[in-house]
Amino acid sequence: MLTAQQRDRISVVLVSPRNPLNIGAVARAMANFGFSHLTVVAPYEPHWREARSAIGAPELLTNAREISTLAEAVRNSTLVLGTGTLTHRKPEQPVTQLDQLAPLLTRELDHPASQIALIFGPEKHGLTREELSFCHHLVEIPTDPRQPSMNLGQAAAVCLYEIAIRSGLPAENPHVTSPSTPRPTSGDLDALADLIQQVMLASNYSPANMQAANQHDLRLMLRRLHLTPADQRRALGLFRRILRRLQNP
Amino acid sequence: MLTAQQRDRISVVLVSPRNPLNIGAVARAMANFGFSHLTVVAPYEPHWREARSAIGAPELLTNAREISTLAEAVRNSTLVLGTGTLTHRKPEQPVTQLDQLAPLLTRELDHPASQIALIFGPEKHGLTREELSFCHHLVEIPTDPRQPSMNLGQAAAVCLYEIAIRSGLPAENPHVTSPSTPRPTSGDLDALADLIQQVMLASNYSPANMQAANQHDLRLMLRRLHLTPADQRRALGLFRRILRRLQNP
Repeated sequence: MLTAQQRDRISVVLVSPRNPLNIGAVARAMANFGFSHLTVVAPYEPHWREARSAIGAPELLTNAREISTLAEAVRNSTLVLGTGTLTHRKPEQPVTQLDQLAPLLTRELDHPASQIALIFGPEKHGLTREELSFCHHLVEIPTDPRQPSMNLGQAAAVCLYEIAIRSGLPAENPHVTSPSTPRPTSGDLDALADLIQQVMLASNYSPANMQAANQHDLRLMLRRLHLTPADQRRALGLFRRILRRLQNP
Repeated sequence: MLTAQQRDRISVVLVSPRNPLNIGAVARAMANFGFSHLTVVAPYEPHWREARSAIGAPELLTNAREISTLAEAVRNSTLVLGTGTLTHRKPEQPVTQLDQLAPLLTRELDHPASQIALIFGPEKHGLTREELSFCHHLVEIPTDPRQPSMNLGQAAAVCLYEIAIRSGLPAENPHVTSPSTPRPTSGDLDALADLIQQVMLASNYSPANMQAANQHDLRLMLRRLHLTPADQRRALGLFRRILRRLQNP
């Protein structure tokens, strides 16, 4: 069971939601399970804050952040979890079934500075490959293969129920998990990726038509490496020096 | 994890749902988690089968049963589970938190003849005291006390996810539960209650103005007793004899 303080470090991020009723339904489920931080990225309908389906959660919509890019929305997150059914995609990150998620989340929450973002894609097609590349980890809801696609509000309710009830420390055994190492934020990883990208350019590492693919792979790789914040700072220092040398030989 | 055969013995019963979109959303969640038996009791809107929210589940709505009373809807069920948040009511039956439900359901499913009904009340006020009296057991979704009331489609999704994933026999340890005794169906219990009621009348057991209250208490008591089908038949035989004697002294 999560404490109120732990719930406060988990935010829900909706990417390009189309129907305000679904945004309101997500807000209602968040209030039902004690979560309060909602970010809406590039919503389709400008008046989404008035969604009447947010029963019992109007302040949650009023206080929600509206951000234009996913990179910016998860900038301060140390663990970004993408959701969806992965029937048509070969995932590039580790995938955990929702009912197996608790140990991972509990370890992450063990760090007082960790911030977790739970990302839901748009109603029709879910998260794109580009959007998924901002995720450290994917979470799959174990649905029936014959009918895997869930309604957005229902998918959020199921995820938040599972996380609220089964993550965090069990009351009777407060130190059952081993501590994890802290992670850099998503923004710190992006800053490092940008710098490495500049080094690649300055060193003529790859032809111009490969730059987008390299950027994508780099983003995924940096999230897979489990860098500590100190690792990130060290790498940043090194690549800064390399870049300066390349530009002023 | 439930097998397909076990899912087939669990039905969802919606009592007096008002909004067809919610009925459709329940059908969609049922399809997502592999359930297919839906019963709708006294729906408000006659054209509920056309609900467009039943994405991926139109046959489920076409094949759903429409029944006029809850007693009739659960007549063949051996375990009737009522759902809701119980903040404003003192429950008359045992209550289990949703995340603790698996052992009870798994034991019940151990009997090949068991049939389980999961009941959801209308959107505004949930199940009435009268409707709850048909339930052996109540299930509470552990929501935030400040915002306990869930949307019907979201509540169904959360319950069906939990039941589909965590009930049934774990694959690696197929006989972890101890077998339970079989239960009479809800209809058998009602037949016994009706007969006892007649005996009460014939024996001048209670004044006329207490009859409704006695019927209610009797229904609850018979569900609390864990009668076996043989117990039910024995009691039925005994009360039939008593009634005949009372009517022909």
